[in-house]
Amino acid sequence: MFINIDIESDIPVYLQLIYEIKRLIITGSLRQGEFLPSIRNLAGDIGINMHTVNKSYKQLVAEGILVKDTKGFKVGALSKRQMNRTLKKEFNERLRQILIDAAMFNLSYEEFSEWQAKVTEDIMKGND
Amino acid sequence: MFINIDIESDIPVYLQLIYEIKRLIITGSLRQGEFLPSIRNLAGDIGINMHTVNKSYKQLVAEGILVKDTKGFKVGALSKRQMNRTLKKEFNERLRQILIDAAMFNLSYEEFSEWQAKVTEDIMKGND
Repeated sequence: MFINIDIESDIPVYLQLIYEIKRLIITGSLRQGEFLPSIRNLAGDIGINMHTVNKSYKQLVAEGILVKDTKGFKVGALSKRQMNRTLKKEFNERLRQILIDAAMFNLSYEEFSEWQAKVTEDIMKGND
Repeated sequence: MFINIDIESDIPVYLQLIYEIKRLIITGSLRQGEFLPSIRNLAGDIGINMHTVNKSYKQLVAEGILVKDTKGFKVGALSKRQMNRTLKKEFNERLRQILIDAAMFNLSYEEFSEWQAKVTEDIMKGND
């Protein structure tokens, strides 16, 4: 499992880790039912604090993406992956802010779509 | 100038205020060169802390959207409104996260586009 964390980044490490795990799931590197490394192992491998890994795993459980059982954290069932009301509201707000900023900085619909396509391509390739 | 702030919301008030001001600019309610209310007046009108208004205004100045002169804060020139490197990087990251979440929760391209169109419509109407 290749996880790319940039300690120097302005983005909090726990948030980077959340999106790295999500990226591994959507690109198929981590599959339904597959176990993630233990908190201790992952923290050791990346060289970050165990509390940070714990925070990321817990948020992914709260979002219904990971499931915790007696053996550890695993990827939850795809069929159960649905945005709840809170997540929908939060997603809506983030989309709203990004669209306001796009208009604010005069990005045309085409420029925004191109940007979106480029970012999607990078996600699928695993680039930053 | 009609500013809509929800004190009960999970979104920090200074951030709500930033996006309300941006919304007023992109919808044409606030024009290039137009002065914003003084920090004291706006804080009083909305019923929020002056520090909060100050924080929002300062961030908008940092983004090149507002300009501070001796008479107060005014909307900067549209022609100078360009994302700098930091803003671009930050915008890119927010777009990346939102697209990962869209894929994560199995939003199809069509569903995402529809959601986007709906949010754009609400921004232009001034709805939440």
